[in-house]
Amino acid sequence: MFQTEIQLRVRYADTDQMGYVYYGNYATYYEVARVEAFRQLGYAYKKLEEEGVMMPVIELKTQFHLPAKYDDLLTIKVRIPKFPKTLIRYEYEIFNEAGQKVNTGETTLVFINMKTNRPTRVPQVMRDLLAPFY
Amino acid sequence: MFQTEIQLRVRYADTDQMGYVYYGNYATYYEVARVEAFRQLGYAYKKLEEEGVMMPVIELKTQFHLPAKYDDLLTIKVRIPKFPKTLIRYEYEIFNEAGQKVNTGETTLVFINMKTNRPTRVPQVMRDLLAPFY
Amino acid sequence: MFQTEIQLRVRYADTDQMGYVYYGNYATYYEVARVEAFRQLGYAYKKLEEEGVMMPVIELKTQFHLPAKYDDLLTIKVRIPKFPKTLIRYEYEIFNEAGQKVNTGETTLVFINMKTNRPTRVPQVMRDLLAPFY
Amino acid sequence: MFQTEIQLRVRYADTDQMGYVYYGNYATYYEVARVEAFRQLGYAYKKLEEEGVMMPVIELKTQFHLPAKYDDLLTIKVRIPKFPKTLIRYEYEIFNEAGQKVNTGETTLVFINMKTNRPTRVPQVMRDLLAPFY
Repeated sequence: MFQTEIQLRVRYADTDQMGYVYYGNYATYYEVARVEAFRQLGYAYKKLEEEGVMMPVIELKTQFHLPAKYDDLLTIKVRIPKFPKTLIRYEYEIFNEAGQKVNTGETTLVFINMKTNRPTRVPQVMRDLLAPFY
Repeated sequence: MFQTEIQLRVRYADTDQMGYVYYGNYATYYEVARVEAFRQLGYAYKKLEEEGVMMPVIELKTQFHLPAKYDDLLTIKVRIPKFPKTLIRYEYEIFNEAGQKVNTGETTLVFINMKTNRPTRVPQVMRDLLAPFY
Repeated sequence: MFQTEIQLRVRYADTDQMGYVYYGNYATYYEVARVEAFRQLGYAYKKLEEEGVMMPVIELKTQFHLPAKYDDLLTIKVRIPKFPKTLIRYEYEIFNEAGQKVNTGETTLVFINMKTNRPTRVPQVMRDLLAPFY
Repeated sequence: MFQTEIQLRVRYADTDQMGYVYYGNYATYYEVARVEAFRQLGYAYKKLEEEGVMMPVIELKTQFHLPAKYDDLLTIKVRIPKFPKTLIRYEYEIFNEAGQKVNTGETTLVFINMKTNRPTRVPQVMRDLLAPFY
């Protein structure tokens, strides 16, 4: 299974008047985590779109265990539990600097051929990058 | 069961380079829907915080059926399926102007006493507002 | 001179941990104001892009006089001080419900031909809509 | 004069349907730049708030020269042109990986005593950090 982790600093813009990270911003944190995960494998998601495939999210689930706060340096553990076929699922766990788990989430994405605007299989380049882990 | 609907216009800021509403922004749409739902009952969530109770989200689930797009006038149907005790769950369905369902979601929120920073029961004012519907 | 006003409710997502609207979000409020201003004239900015012209912002200035707060119903006065040629400048004043001016701003936008990716003159449809006011 | 630079990766969430960074998001980039600038001096802005002083922005000016795009690794040069007394002004220049200047901006911030909610002088800790540069 492919898994890795990235770090991310909470911005002032991310907070709300509770003094917590606004709950919708975790979706952005997940985006950063999955993009950086592929960059660690040597691949920029940007290239995928340049080659005519985009990856919209079709499902998002999030559980908020503890508030993340301004300036927290978060660690996001991200994994792809199964080798993807037409869908790709990412799972995330977010920890604060004290090692407390603040958030658990998952996203499911689909591959869309940007010319036909229809679902397509996982591009070969991603299959090749992920194959060694499964 | 209490249910209602609100309308909301997609902003340019909400879009991403796919030309879709960025997936994290639906959380904001849900927030607007649940706040406006209570305003329709005559109650501003703002008052709840002024009285020392806040409502962080502890769980979010979203399914993205079709892209919402710039300038779409969305209809958000929101309902509270069960009379709340310590948690309150909202369910959402979002439709575009063509009547297509673009998104389904749910959020679960908890009531926090802002002085003790601990969970508390549903405030009486909300119980009174919701009671007639259950 | 064309001028009008629109109303907009501050969302929880717009606030930061100071309990104020985060300063970057006023740019979004300006966007809503200028789009709704043209809608009041009977024109949707969306159509402009469908016809191949987009309007990126090239300059933004903002002065923050007083904090806007969660759930404030803001009134945004927007005007186009001069009949536009190649640039269009909007000026904004934002007031809270107590009638206090919370923010003053201006944005300058340019018209870009989406095929050539180069500046173009004000589209005829916008000239026709604005002409009666100058 | 104190000046430094930081790097920041454009997120998908930052883009809009033009395929550019949405113009309001530069305010967030400036925030990150000024916070990281002080962190480089050994000081976390978070501490300032914990000690009862916050720094709202009172003026923002931005010029957009070229679009920043998804996944660009931006370099933000930030400087404090004058030793601050009651206001602190930051100037920013943002460059893309090709070395092109995409954006120029400035923000002016004030120091607010969070107890009295009134302006206060620059805290001694910031004066001490900045003094060697002026």
